[in-house]
Amino acid sequence: MKHTDFAPYPPMGWNSWDCYGAAVNEEQLLGNAGYMRDHLKEYGWNVVTCDIQWSEPSAFDTMYTPNAPLCMDEYSRLIPAPNRFPSAADGRGFLPISRKIHEMGLLFGIHIMRGIPRQAIYSRTKIKGTDLTADKVGDPFSVCGWNSDMYGVDVRSPGAQAYYDSLFELYAEWEIDFVKVDDIATTGAHANDSHCHGPMPGVGEIEMIHKAIMKCGRPIVLSLSPGPAPVEYAWMFKKNANMWRLTNDVWDNWSAVANMFERCETWQGHGGDGVWPDCDMLPFGHINCNARYGDNYCRMTHDEQISMMNLWSIFRSPLIVGAELRDCDEFTLSLLTNAEILRLNKHSYSPNQIYRTRRAAAWYSHDDNGDGGGEYYIALFNLRDEAATVTVSASDVDEFDIRGRQIRDLWAHKDIGVSGDVIEAALPPHGSVVYRLK
Amino acid sequence: MKHTDFAPYPPMGWNSWDCYGAAVNEEQLLGNAGYMRDHLKEYGWNVVTCDIQWSEPSAFDTMYTPNAPLCMDEYSRLIPAPNRFPSAADGRGFLPISRKIHEMGLLFGIHIMRGIPRQAIYSRTKIKGTDLTADKVGDPFSVCGWNSDMYGVDVRSPGAQAYYDSLFELYAEWEIDFVKVDDIATTGAHANDSHCHGPMPGVGEIEMIHKAIMKCGRPIVLSLSPGPAPVEYAWMFKKNANMWRLTNDVWDNWSAVANMFERCETWQGHGGDGVWPDCDMLPFGHINCNARYGDNYCRMTHDEQISMMNLWSIFRSPLIVGAELRDCDEFTLSLLTNAEILRLNKHSYSPNQIYRTRRAAAWYSHDDNGDGGGEYYIALFNLRDEAATVTVSASDVDEFDIRGRQIRDLWAHKDIGVSGDVIEAALPPHGSVVYRLK
Amino acid sequence: MKHTDFAPYPPMGWNSWDCYGAAVNEEQLLGNAGYMRDHLKEYGWNVVTCDIQWSEPSAFDTMYTPNAPLCMDEYSRLIPAPNRFPSAADGRGFLPISRKIHEMGLLFGIHIMRGIPRQAIYSRTKIKGTDLTADKVGDPFSVCGWNSDMYGVDVRSPGAQAYYDSLFELYAEWEIDFVKVDDIATTGAHANDSHCHGPMPGVGEIEMIHKAIMKCGRPIVLSLSPGPAPVEYAWMFKKNANMWRLTNDVWDNWSAVANMFERCETWQGHGGDGVWPDCDMLPFGHINCNARYGDNYCRMTHDEQISMMNLWSIFRSPLIVGAELRDCDEFTLSLLTNAEILRLNKHSYSPNQIYRTRRAAAWYSHDDNGDGGGEYYIALFNLRDEAATVTVSASDVDEFDIRGRQIRDLWAHKDIGVSGDVIEAALPPHGSVVYRLK
Amino acid sequence: MKHTDFAPYPPMGWNSWDCYGAAVNEEQLLGNAGYMRDHLKEYGWNVVTCDIQWSEPSAFDTMYTPNAPLCMDEYSRLIPAPNRFPSAADGRGFLPISRKIHEMGLLFGIHIMRGIPRQAIYSRTKIKGTDLTADKVGDPFSVCGWNSDMYGVDVRSPGAQAYYDSLFELYAEWEIDFVKVDDIATTGAHANDSHCHGPMPGVGEIEMIHKAIMKCGRPIVLSLSPGPAPVEYAWMFKKNANMWRLTNDVWDNWSAVANMFERCETWQGHGGDGVWPDCDMLPFGHINCNARYGDNYCRMTHDEQISMMNLWSIFRSPLIVGAELRDCDEFTLSLLTNAEILRLNKHSYSPNQIYRTRRAAAWYSHDDNGDGGGEYYIALFNLRDEAATVTVSASDVDEFDIRGRQIRDLWAHKDIGVSGDVIEAALPPHGSVVYRLK
Repeated sequence: MKHTDFAPYPPMGWNSWDCYGAAVNEEQLLGNAGYMRDHLKEYGWNVVTCDIQWSEPSAFDTMYTPNAPLCMDEYSRLIPAPNRFPSAADGRGFLPISRKIHEMGLLFGIHIMRGIPRQAIYSRTKIKGTDLTADKVGDPFSVCGWNSDMYGVDVRSPGAQAYYDSLFELYAEWEIDFVKVDDIATTGAHANDSHCHGPMPGVGEIEMIHKAIMKCGRPIVLSLSPGPAPVEYAWMFKKNANMWRLTNDVWDNWSAVANMFERCETWQGHGGDGVWPDCDMLPFGHINCNARYGDNYCRMTHDEQISMMNLWSIFRSPLIVGAELRDCDEFTLSLLTNAEILRLNKHSYSPNQIYRTRRAAAWYSHDDNGDGGGEYYIALFNLRDEAATVTVSASDVDEFDIRGRQIRDLWAHKDIGVSGDVIEAALPPHGSVVYRLK
Repeated sequence: MKHTDFAPYPPMGWNSWDCYGAAVNEEQLLGNAGYMRDHLKEYGWNVVTCDIQWSEPSAFDTMYTPNAPLCMDEYSRLIPAPNRFPSAADGRGFLPISRKIHEMGLLFGIHIMRGIPRQAIYSRTKIKGTDLTADKVGDPFSVCGWNSDMYGVDVRSPGAQAYYDSLFELYAEWEIDFVKVDDIATTGAHANDSHCHGPMPGVGEIEMIHKAIMKCGRPIVLSLSPGPAPVEYAWMFKKNANMWRLTNDVWDNWSAVANMFERCETWQGHGGDGVWPDCDMLPFGHINCNARYGDNYCRMTHDEQISMMNLWSIFRSPLIVGAELRDCDEFTLSLLTNAEILRLNKHSYSPNQIYRTRRAAAWYSHDDNGDGGGEYYIALFNLRDEAATVTVSASDVDEFDIRGRQIRDLWAHKDIGVSGDVIEAALPPHGSVVYRLK
Repeated sequence: MKHTDFAPYPPMGWNSWDCYGAAVNEEQLLGNAGYMRDHLKEYGWNVVTCDIQWSEPSAFDTMYTPNAPLCMDEYSRLIPAPNRFPSAADGRGFLPISRKIHEMGLLFGIHIMRGIPRQAIYSRTKIKGTDLTADKVGDPFSVCGWNSDMYGVDVRSPGAQAYYDSLFELYAEWEIDFVKVDDIATTGAHANDSHCHGPMPGVGEIEMIHKAIMKCGRPIVLSLSPGPAPVEYAWMFKKNANMWRLTNDVWDNWSAVANMFERCETWQGHGGDGVWPDCDMLPFGHINCNARYGDNYCRMTHDEQISMMNLWSIFRSPLIVGAELRDCDEFTLSLLTNAEILRLNKHSYSPNQIYRTRRAAAWYSHDDNGDGGGEYYIALFNLRDEAATVTVSASDVDEFDIRGRQIRDLWAHKDIGVSGDVIEAALPPHGSVVYRLK
Repeated sequence: MKHTDFAPYPPMGWNSWDCYGAAVNEEQLLGNAGYMRDHLKEYGWNVVTCDIQWSEPSAFDTMYTPNAPLCMDEYSRLIPAPNRFPSAADGRGFLPISRKIHEMGLLFGIHIMRGIPRQAIYSRTKIKGTDLTADKVGDPFSVCGWNSDMYGVDVRSPGAQAYYDSLFELYAEWEIDFVKVDDIATTGAHANDSHCHGPMPGVGEIEMIHKAIMKCGRPIVLSLSPGPAPVEYAWMFKKNANMWRLTNDVWDNWSAVANMFERCETWQGHGGDGVWPDCDMLPFGHINCNARYGDNYCRMTHDEQISMMNLWSIFRSPLIVGAELRDCDEFTLSLLTNAEILRLNKHSYSPNQIYRTRRAAAWYSHDDNGDGGGEYYIALFNLRDEAATVTVSASDVDEFDIRGRQIRDLWAHKDIGVSGDVIEAALPPHGSVVYRLK
């Protein structure tokens, strides 16, 4: 089995970061899992992921505490903080939560930072399966620029692969299905690039993590963060991971979506067959639930949120929603349950940008509808701050003839006529449409 | 017909730059064409290209003369200097040379600089098919960093597309088969990036040139120089051109070849189906024939030259030789006539780097031998300055099983045994082998 | 006589750029000179400078016309366009205007771009005092990033110094007192830094211009633009010029002033004794008089304009006002005629920044009041967007004791008490005070 | 007393780094001090400095050990490792060594890294004079790029100044005269510049260290390393320190000296009156005494070493020799005891670069010989790899007339004639002369 078999379609799920930041707890994880089982599973959503700082007892909101003590086992491996995850007490780790989520018919994911806890270095704890202690494995020059928990591992150390193997052995024991590794997928994330041991900082650790997964006996999907992942390493990401971030964190503002058009342009042609360039989480619904400066519902307009779904879907990005699902309003739920758009995300292939300017963008993609019959999608986006008509002409598309086809609007859920030389849409500010051409 | 149909295989040919620099003449062009017809055509070599400064009467060696006057027609289009290309006199342009080369069963290519002659701006000559003069089309801020002949066109000018259309209309009249456009394929080539009108300087002009070719009625292969082409624009290069340079100029030293391993790593997966990332010319044989500081034979060792052929071939780069062909010695000729290696370049598919370190590199590729039977190539490169054994293990290759296959050495031209868990080769400094596995 | 003798105090004057852009004319020059004579000369203002494009007949507003024809003499030297400067007809150049301004008791300055006209290259006109033509002197790779009139001179050309000598010989004939050379004082101004012939692009030309001035027999003040001048070359600027710009163009917005605090911090300690780091023009009063998008009065608040005067004055920047002087309102005139502040600019010495944060800045300087008695200035600036109290404590200043001194407010023009441990001021948004301590 | 009073002349001394790297011991310190007392003190050499890692028991050569344990007191302050400095046992610190060196009539200096030990963070030790522990003071994002001992202090922490005060209180108790603070004087030294809390990383800590010195009651000379110090902060360095490095570490190769000409050019005009831009140590004599890859005598030619002394001396850099002094050969000793050159370093003023090209450099400086009589120095340097004559013409120097003066050669120690229009010297490769003009 190859790692690309672990994610045949772009992963769909929920992650605790947007709503609970560094301080999610067991009740919140299981509560959102329950909602997913009841309302979203039938649409394909099935991964529940616990994000950062689950080993820090003192975490209480979205921010990090420099030099905070963490829960750790005797082998320098972080374990869940029992005050936040009661079922993890007595060394049970994430297994009890994992089991409950599996019983719901869902998958369970966790977040980790690359590297080894700094506190392990200074307490000189052991590395499982070796005679070494952590200070011989951690590279004190390989430091994250925004979180002080870990040092990167020194990939030249004899204990480096053993350490990562021991992590994934533990995660397999916990029956984890999905691991999001952080501080690893971009050059900018590393404070100290001059000390990298490979061509890009993090490459060595990405390869080690891939090997550890292949050894651990469980088909764990590997997700790498944050971006921007450098496209020079497209080949390396495909070789080792299932998804990797195209940008730094996306939040609920249009500028992040607008920027994604450029990134999707760059990365077009790279996704498919088990590897998925990742446009990041969907910050829909109720988020920032325990933020220091207050919670909110997604601050983008409805049109902007639909445009986000449209771009993510035609590009075939993973779809990971950030809302406190139990607080979903009708509109948010409608974003997550449009079966025609979700089919585009899951079953279309070979998406292509038709053009991109400061004012508009257009994409097309393919769908054989199961019968090889050659259907197509066209997405039109208005990037302006005012209403505008966006068009695609027959001469803009080389690969097929846009003319004379039945047009179906995937958000109106109805057929709207037959195409001529030009396909167009009158769109609100930052609005978009996706048409299916039969 | 799409532009990708114009170059179904990586182009193979000869170009005047390495041997005659800025000062090639008609006799030299036709002489090399004659040699190609007689000795190389049967191996697939068939493009003869006249490189830079063919419109400058005063050119006499490899260097450029700032502010030099150029031969130009009434429509601001450069034409060949009759003192160097006598058959071009009386406005016949390159047609007579083109005809002679076609009669040899070969194709004829020319080099152009992107943009419009600066002298046209200041003499305010016309743009064909418009009421405009050159000063309304040339962008004085779009200047090349190393050659002072041209300004880029202002892509927002109404005369910009008309100017490029008029160029390719003329080249079609001249029966040109291949155009190498210079100062266009990298960000670094442009002196004044802050004035670019598109996302990368040159993108607008690349698109205009592509359109002009598609309109001109002749399947002209489009080659873009110099590199390094930014891989962020891979999609754009594929959409508009047939080949584009991965680096700045390659000359006869190992460091240029060594550097190409990194570039091929980055660009793996991007070539095929009519689009060919280009590792640049092969500086074999007698070169620098009229250089100010003296001519020479290729200064790389035989092993290094073979390694160059091996990397270029397994990567499926275009192969454009730079030698004064008429002075080829036996070794140089042997490089150009190894049918097994040239088959690798022409008919293999999906090349992949297995690994790359400072000491060695390995690649594999596919060949179905016409019967879908699944044959493979393995290339092993010693990057060290001393002899070393280079290996590939079965565990290094996921895609197929290297074991139990008949190994054929494509330079020794003989079978050398059956593969086990490890395929290895004892290699001289900078040496390499290519094995075919049946 | 040394060049530092040419500007014993920071120059004070008027320049046509802010109000008339690229299209000032003779009437406007003389009209502003007349106003200066009548209302400002007594306060020390005495330089009238004609800014860019005076040789372009077609100039009509603030923008540049790419590839525009220019008026030029037989020696490749630009001359005033007679349609805009009628007295310059028949080869009289700027001499008639110069004479009129001198009769008013004022000095006359002109702007030039470094380099040689591109049109001279392509018409191959002569260089005075040599057998060379312009194409042998102009360096086609030394191009300005924002104006297409000139090429830089190739400083290695035998005609380079001769060309600059011929320019200043002409300017001396025209009785010019002040020359502002543009496109020369920063690395960023040059489109093509990789072709520079010295350590910073422009250094060679700065040195040549300095030599040409020293030879021309007239004490012409040399002003270099635009900035940011790199402080690594402080020694070079001092050796060759009287003033040089610290930033790119300053216009009538607070962000430009706010940014100047950082630049003044960097350049503190470098001004004095005939060399004056230059904070750029004061965009007060009626400006943009013939701008394509409309004229305006200075868009900064009165408090902001006073803060600008205060920083420029305590730093001892040259003071060059940009207003159409004839339209000065009472407030604008009050800015230019505060004798106590102008004394600070002219006669104080050794200004020092006390501190700078995002919220506030403070400076001190010295004044011996002619009797060596040790008086001081303190300037307090509120950099916040809201009202705030700004303070200096006795412990912030090592060089003298701020306590027990009579405080005079230089804008209120009155004594306000005796200083204690802390000097403070309640200031409006972006407001400031200057106190004199006796 | 101001900090500039602490170093009225450029400091002269010895430092353990070049000979003993990270592992100097008590015997070596005192042995070199003894040599200085006996042979060098009479020439002005008087500072003995113990360089890096004196608190690390495991240090044994020139390299650093990542994550090594250090000797530390209860207040998070590093103390000397008694296995290497036996007199420091029982909490006596450096006081016994300091006393012995003072008895020799010399001064004692120590090296420190900016910041607080990482091991103090994880053991949560106290900060003297506060209720805080180290984890509240150390900034885990402020990390050195080449040594893993410390975190920078978080300058916003209430314990930050208290920590530095406690350090210098201890150093005053130890009777330290000179402190070299490392990882603080350049932007490039910091791994994580984006987390700096001031305009340049390190500025906040430099100011705190300055304050701590002014409070500690002892005139400790402050030396900042490594460079290149950014000249934008010249004003800040002068305000807080006595000397600061212009480059990264200088070793015994000509390229480091050649590079220093550019740095001295940039920094000319900034030294004098207690503040001394620092060209770094003089790697003369026996060095690398316990290097992993072997010791050596200075690998520069005699001419190169003399040129180093000449540049350092005319620029008035601090002079800190790196040799194991007890192994000095006759030539090395002659470098350190040329009284005429040492007078140039100590008593000349206002050095100026006359010119600098790739081939040669020339400087002049002033000396009033105690009687205000106006004597001058001229130094001529041959930067070429072959012998050449280097000249200065009368027209190259504005400030005084080089002609008609008695010339004395400061290495030949004799008068060599009277100057004419040109002063010249025939110099060996990388050779130089210093002339004194009377």
